Amino acid sequence: MILVNGADDGSVSALDRGLHYGDGLFETIEIQDGHPVFWRRHLRRLEYGCQRMHIPFPGTALLTAEAQRLCHGAFKGVLKIILTRGPGGRGYRHPDQIETTRLLTLHPFPEYHESLQKDGIVARFCAIRLGLNPALAGIKHLNRLEQVMARAEWRDQGIHEGLMLDIDGHVVEGTMSNLFIVKNGTMYTDPLKHCGVAGIVREIILEACSAHAMAAVQAPLSKDEFAAAEEVFVTNSLIGIWPVRAIEDYRFNIDGQVLRQVRRWLDAYRQEDLRDAA
Amino acid sequence: MILVNGADDGSVSALDRGLHYGDGLFETIEIQDGHPVFWRRHLRRLEYGCQRMHIPFPGTALLTAEAQRLCHGAFKGVLKIILTRGPGGRGYRHPDQIETTRLLTLHPFPEYHESLQKDGIVARFCAIRLGLNPALAGIKHLNRLEQVMARAEWRDQGIHEGLMLDIDGHVVEGTMSNLFIVKNGTMYTDPLKHCGVAGIVREIILEACSAHAMAAVQAPLSKDEFAAAEEVFVTNSLIGIWPVRAIEDYRFNIDGQVLRQVRRWLDAYRQEDLRDAA
Repeated sequence: MILVNGADDGSVSALDRGLHYGDGLFETIEIQDGHPVFWRRHLRRLEYGCQRMHIPFPGTALLTAEAQRLCHGAFKGVLKIILTRGPGGRGYRHPDQIETTRLLTLHPFPEYHESLQKDGIVARFCAIRLGLNPALAGIKHLNRLEQVMARAEWRDQGIHEGLMLDIDGHVVEGTMSNLFIVKNGTMYTDPLKHCGVAGIVREIILEACSAHAMAAVQAPLSKDEFAAAEEVFVTNSLIGIWPVRAIEDYRFNIDGQVLRQVRRWLDAYRQEDLRDAA
Repeated sequence: MILVNGADDGSVSALDRGLHYGDGLFETIEIQDGHPVFWRRHLRRLEYGCQRMHIPFPGTALLTAEAQRLCHGAFKGVLKIILTRGPGGRGYRHPDQIETTRLLTLHPFPEYHESLQKDGIVARFCAIRLGLNPALAGIKHLNRLEQVMARAEWRDQGIHEGLMLDIDGHVVEGTMSNLFIVKNGTMYTDPLKHCGVAGIVREIILEACSAHAMAAVQAPLSKDEFAAAEEVFVTNSLIGIWPVRAIEDYRFNIDGQVLRQVRRWLDAYRQEDLRDAA
């Protein structure tokens, strides 16, 4: 089932500004026992993205009702929500009255082998760079050509993620994940002030570090720093945390102390979230 | 009428990658007496964009037939063509078999007052910057949030275009147009190697300059250079050439020699195009 503005419909208006300009936002959410995991955080990010892009937010009550309708009875899956600035005429200027389009789709959960969690993944550096734009940085908006082109760079199924550099050479994130490295016991991740998507798992990790007085430095990372990194891991709402075993010639510890600590915290947040939903 | 993959349909699949990622291209074309003006150039740009983005091009014969079907009998209008990478599953990786989506829509011609051609327009500098990405520069792709946000910066109907700087401070183009300035009798325009859209009218102007041995320098422009500019004009397929009368405190000649020459050339190309079509 696909819900478009509350109706069971597989199509959207050919004049929708999401299609014409990528003028919208999205969320990708794990469904566990019919419950969208970290639902309130996803809603909060969506509302914040709407504020930054001046798109009217449809409200938590309506989105919650539609998510429940779609996900009811799904044991495991992925809920994708797209909000767009709705239909409009030709031209970049948006209508004075914006009718936000809501698109909710339910997808099968990706068939990630469980060994990826335990034995880690192999990553590569992508050739295509992330452009810089502070006005859009952090937002999970629909302008995703850079990620599409980066993901098209490899077909080798033994490579699980591609890391993206920005045009200044900083290693910002994966095509579908946020990136953390550990050096001398300290965790680093890009501040996402010029590009990148501020992920929910990344947010939780930074919150947990702050609550437990563990250092988590938000600073740009250079490629050279991977030579000295002890641990590297990537995160998103579906994979949770994947340790990175290898990036090209670099090798990393896949069972380091920092990863184990961070994973315990994420598990605790997840359990609490599922308990609250029950 | 709206043509989606050849069918008279007002909607596209909710799973189309154009909507999910802005994974596609578009053209905006003037219709005059049922004929899409500079049709071969628009088709060529579309095919080139498809090549760069690895989207299968549907072919000139099919697109020409569909454009004729849609525009037949339209005295004056705007044809918009969108090509996307078609429907797909969730995730950035695109399917091995790509079924390009074709969307053709006919719109009324914008009600530009004819005085804009003669008396020139008023422009402003936009606050939002263009990100830099050589891999996407020049392509008329569907990731257009920067333009959408720039166009939302003003509502004053006395301002007709916003000029966009890139994050390095170069004045690259207008929200919907390419930009030329004339300094000491020489014409300059951004090379569009890091951002921007390579417009059809810009292409014609550069071709005509080359054919007539008139200097047209492709170089990045700084804001300071507008202080010394004698003429400034913006171009696109619907407006043709608009002289810029004023940008904030700067004032320019709206009937300069360069503009008059370039306009004569563009008119000649247009007449030739219409003659060929007749």
